[in-house]
Amino acid sequence: MSKEKDFVKEITSREEDSSQWYVDIIRKAEMADYSPVRGCMVIRPYGYAIWEAMKAGLDRRIKETGHQNAYFPLFIPESLLQKEAEHVEGFAPEVAWVTQGGNEALSERLVVRPTSEAIICSMYSKWIQSYRDLPVLINQWANVVRWEKVTRPFLRTTEFLWQEGHTAHRTNEEAQEEVMKMLEVYRDFVENDMAIPVIPGRKSDREKFAGAHATYSIEALMQDGKALQAGTSHNLAQHFAKVFDITYLDEDSQLKYVHQTSWGVSTRLVGALIMVHGDNRGLKIPPKIAPIQVVIVPIAPKKAKEMVLDKAYQLKARLSQAGIRVHLDAREEYSPGYKFNDWEMRGVPLRLEVGPRDIENNQAVLVRRDNREKLFAAFDQLEAVVDQLLNSIQNDMLTAARDFMETNSFAAADLAEMEKIITEKRGFVYAWWCGSEECELEAKERMAATIRNIPLDQEGARQRVCSEAKCVHCGRDAQEVAIFARAY
Amino acid sequence: MSKEKDFVKEITSREEDSSQWYVDIIRKAEMADYSPVRGCMVIRPYGYAIWEAMKAGLDRRIKETGHQNAYFPLFIPESLLQKEAEHVEGFAPEVAWVTQGGNEALSERLVVRPTSEAIICSMYSKWIQSYRDLPVLINQWANVVRWEKVTRPFLRTTEFLWQEGHTAHRTNEEAQEEVMKMLEVYRDFVENDMAIPVIPGRKSDREKFAGAHATYSIEALMQDGKALQAGTSHNLAQHFAKVFDITYLDEDSQLKYVHQTSWGVSTRLVGALIMVHGDNRGLKIPPKIAPIQVVIVPIAPKKAKEMVLDKAYQLKARLSQAGIRVHLDAREEYSPGYKFNDWEMRGVPLRLEVGPRDIENNQAVLVRRDNREKLFAAFDQLEAVVDQLLNSIQNDMLTAARDFMETNSFAAADLAEMEKIITEKRGFVYAWWCGSEECELEAKERMAATIRNIPLDQEGARQRVCSEAKCVHCGRDAQEVAIFARAY
Repeated sequence: MSKEKDFVKEITSREEDSSQWYVDIIRKAEMADYSPVRGCMVIRPYGYAIWEAMKAGLDRRIKETGHQNAYFPLFIPESLLQKEAEHVEGFAPEVAWVTQGGNEALSERLVVRPTSEAIICSMYSKWIQSYRDLPVLINQWANVVRWEKVTRPFLRTTEFLWQEGHTAHRTNEEAQEEVMKMLEVYRDFVENDMAIPVIPGRKSDREKFAGAHATYSIEALMQDGKALQAGTSHNLAQHFAKVFDITYLDEDSQLKYVHQTSWGVSTRLVGALIMVHGDNRGLKIPPKIAPIQVVIVPIAPKKAKEMVLDKAYQLKARLSQAGIRVHLDAREEYSPGYKFNDWEMRGVPLRLEVGPRDIENNQAVLVRRDNREKLFAAFDQLEAVVDQLLNSIQNDMLTAARDFMETNSFAAADLAEMEKIITEKRGFVYAWWCGSEECELEAKERMAATIRNIPLDQEGARQRVCSEAKCVHCGRDAQEVAIFARAY
Repeated sequence: MSKEKDFVKEITSREEDSSQWYVDIIRKAEMADYSPVRGCMVIRPYGYAIWEAMKAGLDRRIKETGHQNAYFPLFIPESLLQKEAEHVEGFAPEVAWVTQGGNEALSERLVVRPTSEAIICSMYSKWIQSYRDLPVLINQWANVVRWEKVTRPFLRTTEFLWQEGHTAHRTNEEAQEEVMKMLEVYRDFVENDMAIPVIPGRKSDREKFAGAHATYSIEALMQDGKALQAGTSHNLAQHFAKVFDITYLDEDSQLKYVHQTSWGVSTRLVGALIMVHGDNRGLKIPPKIAPIQVVIVPIAPKKAKEMVLDKAYQLKARLSQAGIRVHLDAREEYSPGYKFNDWEMRGVPLRLEVGPRDIENNQAVLVRRDNREKLFAAFDQLEAVVDQLLNSIQNDMLTAARDFMETNSFAAADLAEMEKIITEKRGFVYAWWCGSEECELEAKERMAATIRNIPLDQEGARQRVCSEAKCVHCGRDAQEVAIFARAY
């Protein structure tokens, strides 16, 4: 029993220190580990299996919307990166430089890609000639490097994994449609697979991507009241096309610049998963992206061991046959109680216990990870009950996270009110904003809150704030409601 | 019609210049393109879709044999790489060096990983404590960089994609079992999914991996008679364990070093695919790894267009429903003949043609890419016929490649005979070898042939050579038969 208590004691409680709680879960659930390389982490098998499940859900959606995967070089010659002024200004301070290859010093330095616009645009300029070549709808799964000063596993690391979509279109309308389509793909994936509610919206000019005409994001709220940008979709307009000379001969025989987009999500999302759903017993993974959906723990006193294990393997085979990702924990060196804690820490959505009495009663015990509810399922209905429970868990986790976000969404009429909320409770603060960078910066300086985005659903946002459309800082007329928050 | 001739004319014939033929196919089938980065290629969507299909087949096998995926950092501190002497000697001359991060010069240079033994061993040393932690069975899908002087798309590029397995075991027996198990996984995948026959064997000491105790490989024969190493599996013994201090407390309370293995295959295999199966009409992809297994080309005169397209979409839906990867080429700007050539170039295993007369006869025309055989399938039996044809194509492609390999496998009793074969016909040359590096080097100097491997099937190999077991060069007693060949 003491062993079991120790197990949970090993993670700091979230209320006490949510930062330490976060890294404790990562360590204890064996999701990732620090490496001997500054700012880089190792993604361990359990963490990587979660990322693989997420990739599968995203990749399917990316392909269903007509995109194809490709792979572009890791290295970008300095001269290419420098072509687009805002882009290089945004990224140059945070890139890793390769200056030597084998035994030769390079005549031109190479950047380890922080993002791939420059290298991809240089290829698009070759590939795109005619309107018949458009649209180009390409995605890449890759590692990227940004020389971060302060790092945290999954949230901000020097190297991280992501996907980056890069598309080219005939018109701005088509490009804008693509930008919104992919933002919706991200919203759909993050809400329906990861059970994390998000607010889709437009970034302020200050917060947009270096080189973009407009950036859109989905923003999620962590349990500590801080926001996290969970995905971005950029309308690059013709900025890169003009710099990299990406033109096409249109049907009217005119040579025109293409309109481009780019969009990405990264292993940051794994960090969001921990911070949105986790509790003091560890991780909680929604069934759709759980590497293990059901863990079977046999409760086997010595004399009944064989019978119980036989039954456990039988149930495992049946669930597996039904397409459920199931694991049987047959380890002999650990007690059932230790295993319960271990798998709760790893966030497996459903635990199935089976012992001699259960076998007598022809039923299994099922325990939900999300609310720890205990239920019984007759053996002959097991697949149906498990399937239905996994669906309920998926839905209930989204509902719980949505309730949390609602409870922690506020409105402020002026900066004093906003500051009180941000300081005391954090959360999302909806407020009228005049659109000036000055007012945006004032919030940042006074309370370290930034504009997360200007929600697409302005109608819904307006209902949260006072009817008088005056900027939260300067009091001038405002057209839009923005969300302010402290953020990761 | 002239357009169609041009299409095929655009690739050089293999007989004329097999090197140019190879890059012509890559360009024309849009598999890859040169990039502005020295030695790095872009893998275009069609080439990447082939790699994705290969990854899927390999990843399934890697997981079925008990391995889990993980992800380790791209960068390796110089001091880590230098720990194992042979390893650093083997790789240092061909790595890319990161010397600056953001605006700061790094106090220690970082290597862009050429392979990950060093970084992974440093983690294993942390993770492995007890015999209960063993075996560790981890695989990684990643990009790696080797500063190559001469590059060719897929075959040898500065950056390439691969998987690398890294395992740790209690005993040498277990490690050796793992090494052979993964070699067999590679053989099974390459032969059964890629339809490429291979010879599994042990590398000579001279050709083994830097830091390995023993290296095993599968070797394939290209149509130009040159060999290609298609996968390697290394027994690292305790070399790295001793250097990186990877120890475990065994059941007998003794602290022991682990025994390790590593194994990998890369995007080189895509090059092998082209060179083993391709012909003067382009690529030929075996059905199991074909991104498109069946392409439907509607033959639609103007007045019957709607009827034919309706039928084509119907057939597409049916094949897709049956789990077949099918594409309908409904482009209006190209003739059927142009499309035939286009999809033959891309190596799609089966073409389905449907026109007004076919509809009248309730049948579709099917044309095999491998042997260009033309068949008819009644509409109501389409799924079954296509499924059976795809199986036949898969098998027949392996048989054809195996026949080619057999026809081009020779034996030599002395170096003069070997030189005549290698110079005139190339191919695999089986010969007795005494095991000395001197005799191995003599073959290399005289005819640029290296020992590909010492086949595991020594019994089979002996049947190919003369019964007197004397070394092909020095004439001393020999215990083993080796395969000599020129190689990529």
